[in-house]
Amino acid sequence: MITTLYDDPELAELVRALRPDTEPREVIAAIAWHVMTEPGDAVGGVLREQLGRIEALDAALSPLPRAGAQSATLADARGRWEPRAQLTLVRDAAAEAVRVGATLLLPGDPCWPQGLDDLGVHAPVLLWVRGNPEALVRSAAAVSIVGARASTSYGELLAREIAGDLAERGHVVFSGGAYGIDGAAHRATLAVGGETVAFLAGGIDRLYPPGNSPLLHDIIARGAVVSEAPCGTAPTRWRFLSRNRLIGAASAATVVIEAGWRSGSLNTAGHAAALGRPLGAVPGPVTSATSAGCHRLMREYGAVCVTSAAEVRELVGEHGEQPAAEREHPDYVRLRDALAARSPRTTLDIARRAGLSVSRVESLLGMLSLEGDAVRSEAGWTRAPAVIR
Amino acid sequence: MITTLYDDPELAELVRALRPDTEPREVIAAIAWHVMTEPGDAVGGVLREQLGRIEALDAALSPLPRAGAQSATLADARGRWEPRAQLTLVRDAAAEAVRVGATLLLPGDPCWPQGLDDLGVHAPVLLWVRGNPEALVRSAAAVSIVGARASTSYGELLAREIAGDLAERGHVVFSGGAYGIDGAAHRATLAVGGETVAFLAGGIDRLYPPGNSPLLHDIIARGAVVSEAPCGTAPTRWRFLSRNRLIGAASAATVVIEAGWRSGSLNTAGHAAALGRPLGAVPGPVTSATSAGCHRLMREYGAVCVTSAAEVRELVGEHGEQPAAEREHPDYVRLRDALAARSPRTTLDIARRAGLSVSRVESLLGMLSLEGDAVRSEAGWTRAPAVIR
Repeated sequence: MITTLYDDPELAELVRALRPDTEPREVIAAIAWHVMTEPGDAVGGVLREQLGRIEALDAALSPLPRAGAQSATLADARGRWEPRAQLTLVRDAAAEAVRVGATLLLPGDPCWPQGLDDLGVHAPVLLWVRGNPEALVRSAAAVSIVGARASTSYGELLAREIAGDLAERGHVVFSGGAYGIDGAAHRATLAVGGETVAFLAGGIDRLYPPGNSPLLHDIIARGAVVSEAPCGTAPTRWRFLSRNRLIGAASAATVVIEAGWRSGSLNTAGHAAALGRPLGAVPGPVTSATSAGCHRLMREYGAVCVTSAAEVRELVGEHGEQPAAEREHPDYVRLRDALAARSPRTTLDIARRAGLSVSRVESLLGMLSLEGDAVRSEAGWTRAPAVIR
Repeated sequence: MITTLYDDPELAELVRALRPDTEPREVIAAIAWHVMTEPGDAVGGVLREQLGRIEALDAALSPLPRAGAQSATLADARGRWEPRAQLTLVRDAAAEAVRVGATLLLPGDPCWPQGLDDLGVHAPVLLWVRGNPEALVRSAAAVSIVGARASTSYGELLAREIAGDLAERGHVVFSGGAYGIDGAAHRATLAVGGETVAFLAGGIDRLYPPGNSPLLHDIIARGAVVSEAPCGTAPTRWRFLSRNRLIGAASAATVVIEAGWRSGSLNTAGHAAALGRPLGAVPGPVTSATSAGCHRLMREYGAVCVTSAAEVRELVGEHGEQPAAEREHPDYVRLRDALAARSPRTTLDIARRAGLSVSRVESLLGMLSLEGDAVRSEAGWTRAPAVIR
């Protein structure tokens, strides 16, 4: 395939359209790699890391592998890449991407999310973007909000609140474009004029799920829809799991709002946690199956319990207004306990009840009366009526 | 007071009734200390630790303090103890305890909860017990279950479930005898024939709150009601806060089920956490004010999220049945993704879709067909209908 790949005039023209300023062989090799391999293929990642994507492709496809390079692992890998090593598949992926007006991002590009590099040899070969690639790299930290497809109105309410608040403060909200929590987070972001990015498991030419197609078109218009899979690729379970690692890696923090015990959101969260990204989970009733995954994240993945947008922002590293630490001196507590609302009491009586000395009681009563909390009369001291603070 | 204290015949008789086998001066000194000081009085604790309770009382009350012992702190302390240093108060506390049939526990007694010693100079001077003191020291770890007085049916359901499960397995359930979560936990324990202990903030002669008096009488009959406060003492706010440290310290673990943002249960939990005791909190809807304190415990106090009785038992250190770690090999996931339910596919087609070699697909299909997950026909392979597992 190698020779025909670089010499095909049709593919060359598509590549010029996609990346007019990039060495065509780099682009062709990247597209070939992402067609040949499933997302996260570590053997391909190692090869590309060692040789660069062009030479790696050469090593992957040449009929006579270099001496020493042909380990059993590589032989296995070549075996699984071979069925897809076809010029037509590469050409079709490129053609469809051009047709839908996609942008091709390569590692190192200005709009490439740097967090993805933390995935090492599991990092994507490339990203396809429909919409504005700059949405991937805004200065305010991007936050991933993911969760159950079969969400409840409780979860959707929280997704809306948290996503809306973050978007209003300039954060881009990342999610997976799915029904339920994902959709609620995307919609809330758009509703306040914010930017949002949907990471798809299949090709960006197929806006999946179909029922969210209008939403995904809105996202393309006001943010971006992104995938590492070739156009024409179906969103399989494997690709959903792989896609989740991108959501976890590309954002500064991940928040899970409602998730079943075995939800795919836990997979996203697991990736985020493994990369050391802050991970939050919203609690819910323990009687709700859709919150079981969130509680599991707190117990098993070290997720932080988050109950509001402010707490999510704290997770990302923004510190808002902290309530002033209130400390009541124990003696005041005891003194107030010892005062009655109606019966006036002497300082000796108060001292006995409070377990304080008479002189201490006298000085504290002075303070309390200044604050309006204690009232003196001929017969002694009484507590001032409670004031709602 | 000192001389009259040890010489009063009425007090001597009461003390003989309470502790026939203990040196009377030790008992009298303990009762005097707990009458004179509010719970947790550290200066009294230090004095008793250094001198023993009899000599410490001497130092606290003698009109001419020893040279060097009279620090400003001690002078302050003597000032606050003095208003209560009266023989009649000591005698009344002992008389009322005898009248209600209370047991007097001193530190080091077989039924003294050893965990209380971790409170150091804040440990109680003594404990009054109505009921069976042995309930304090059963071999199975005691678990404290506390929470909001203004609980919801959600919280009460969980209190019943968790307390009932623990009691059935021999754990004694500690709580505070209050309305709401405390009451639900006590009741659930009694309902399954278990033992439960209520720690009161005031004297054990006053069963507080009055509405729980029938419940507290049941607890006395089948467990114990305990307090460090003298009989006749009202349950003040200070004493509630102090009582909470006993609940946290005396049990092996503390679980909070529903608590407002400023709930007293957080105080109990804070004591438990400060002593290094396992602390659990049950999550709830973030929209429920009665769960806000539980979420706060997870965020600020390092409480473990617990959602079931089994998870509480794990917190105490019991490990039950763990679900076997399920790991699906990625290749199987991809292979199943590549099979269709109706259209038969060739191994080459499946290999392309799955990103696997033809030989790997053939060997995996062999395994899948053995497990009944894939079906071979003349035209190729199809996925077997899904089975609910």
